[in-house]
Amino acid sequence: MRLVFPIVLTAAGCASSTPIDAARVVDLTYPFNDKSIYWPTAQKFSLTRVAWGHNDSGHWYASNDYAASEHGGTHLDAPIHFAPNGWSTAEIPVAQLIGPVRVIDVRRQCDGDRNYQVTVADIEAHETVHGAIEPGSIVLLRTGFGRHYPDARLYLGSDVRGSIEGLSFPGFGPDAARALVDRRVDMVGLDTASLDHGSSTDFAAHRIFCEANIPGLENVANLDRLPPVGATLIALPMKIEGGTGGPCRIIAFLPR
Amino acid sequence: MRLVFPIVLTAAGCASSTPIDAARVVDLTYPFNDKSIYWPTAQKFSLTRVAWGHNDSGHWYASNDYAASEHGGTHLDAPIHFAPNGWSTAEIPVAQLIGPVRVIDVRRQCDGDRNYQVTVADIEAHETVHGAIEPGSIVLLRTGFGRHYPDARLYLGSDVRGSIEGLSFPGFGPDAARALVDRRVDMVGLDTASLDHGSSTDFAAHRIFCEANIPGLENVANLDRLPPVGATLIALPMKIEGGTGGPCRIIAFLPR
Repeated sequence: MRLVFPIVLTAAGCASSTPIDAARVVDLTYPFNDKSIYWPTAQKFSLTRVAWGHNDSGHWYASNDYAASEHGGTHLDAPIHFAPNGWSTAEIPVAQLIGPVRVIDVRRQCDGDRNYQVTVADIEAHETVHGAIEPGSIVLLRTGFGRHYPDARLYLGSDVRGSIEGLSFPGFGPDAARALVDRRVDMVGLDTASLDHGSSTDFAAHRIFCEANIPGLENVANLDRLPPVGATLIALPMKIEGGTGGPCRIIAFLPR
Repeated sequence: MRLVFPIVLTAAGCASSTPIDAARVVDLTYPFNDKSIYWPTAQKFSLTRVAWGHNDSGHWYASNDYAASEHGGTHLDAPIHFAPNGWSTAEIPVAQLIGPVRVIDVRRQCDGDRNYQVTVADIEAHETVHGAIEPGSIVLLRTGFGRHYPDARLYLGSDVRGSIEGLSFPGFGPDAARALVDRRVDMVGLDTASLDHGSSTDFAAHRIFCEANIPGLENVANLDRLPPVGATLIALPMKIEGGTGGPCRIIAFLPR
C-alpha cells in the first residue's frame, strides 16, 4: 500500500485555487534575536548592522552580519556533536531530514518533575493509542516547556550565564533513546534546549542518538500546532561543512 | 483540477518500502566553508572550533561558533535588503518559500556575454515551450555560471577582496524582473552571486523584486539536476529577526 502524504499543491494554471495550500504549513521555528535561548556557556546570537538606510545614490540598502554558537535557538544537533564518527551537519542525507512526525505528549509527567526523563513506557503509551512508530519516523517530545520560551529562568531553570548550575528541564531518558534507535527513527527532537534533561551530567541520550547517526532538534517551537500522528516534517539546517549542528528552519505540513 | 505533486511518502508500517522516496529529493545548496563565495566587500563565513575531542569524562564532544555576512554562500535576499518597507527574513510567510519551480535556461546567451541581462524574450521563449508561468511560481535562471563555483575569478569575474571592480556575471534585466512581478511569482533566484548582473551599479532587478516583496535566492547549486518545469522547491532560510537575508537551505522534489 502506498499513501500520498498531505503535501498537496494545486494544479498549475488553475485560476480558482492558490498554488499552495498555505493553511497546512506550520512553522516550528523561533526567530533568531537577542532573546534566543543558548546554553549558558555558549556564544549567543548577535546581529550587527553593516548598512541600513539610503545610500549615496538615493537607494535603500540594508545588510547585517550574524554570529553565534551552532547550538542555540531552534537548531539541529549533528551526530558528530557527541560521536566522533557521526555525520557533520552538511553530511546528513537530506532525505533523513524529512518524514512523518510523531508528537509524544509528556506534559503531565513534566508538570510534576522539571527534570523528568521520558521512558519506554511513555513511548509505548503513545503507540498504544496512535500505532507503532515506523522506521524513518521523526519523533518529537511535547514537554510543554515551549510555553516558557524565551524566559531562560523558567525554560532552562536558570538565567545565569556562564554556569550550568541549576539547569532543570525534561529530556529523553537513556532507555527511551535506545528504544527509538531500535525503532530506526530518522530524527528526534523536543521543545527544550537539550535532548538530555537539565541535570544530566553524562548526556546519555545525546550519546545514544549521535552514535546511531540520528540528528536531534532542540528548541522546537509551536508543538501545540501538531497532531500526535499524521503530519510531515521538514527540518533544513544551515549546511555547515564540518558543523556539529546549526540553526535549523523546521516546518510541518498538517494532515488533510 | 487538482494535482498531487511529487512529494510522496510511503505508508506507515509498510515494511517493504522506505518511508521517503529519497531519489526524488535534490539538494540545491552549497556547503558553508572557507571557500564559500561572498560579495568582495562582505564578511566571509568563518567557523571557529570551541570543543573538538574527548573531554575529562572520556566522552567525545564537539562544538563550533559561526559568523558571516547574511549575503553569501547559498542564501536568500529578504525584500528589506533593497526596499525599506519590504519583509525581513523572519517576516516572509513560509508558504511563499514553497512552490512549483521553473528553470529558465539562458546558458547560451550567457556564454557569449558574461554580463548578460535576461530579457522578457527569454522568459517568453521558455513559456512557449513549457507553458505560462503561473502565479505563485518560483523562477530560477540557469546561467551555467554554477560550474565555476567556488572559483571567485571565474564565478564573480574577480577574486580581489574589498573591491567590486571587474565583477562580471549574468543576472535578471529590469524588464524581465518587471515581467515576473506582473506574473505574480513568489520567489526568484539563480546560479550566480546576485540577482543583478555583475557590472550593474543601480541594482535595478534587486529593487524591482524587493519592492514587490519577492525574495531572491542567490548562489543556487545543482540547477543541472532540475527539469525546466515540474519540480517543487522548498527554500528555508535561517529565521533571522530583522534579517536582510540569510543562509538558506534549498531543496527540490523531482516530478514523478
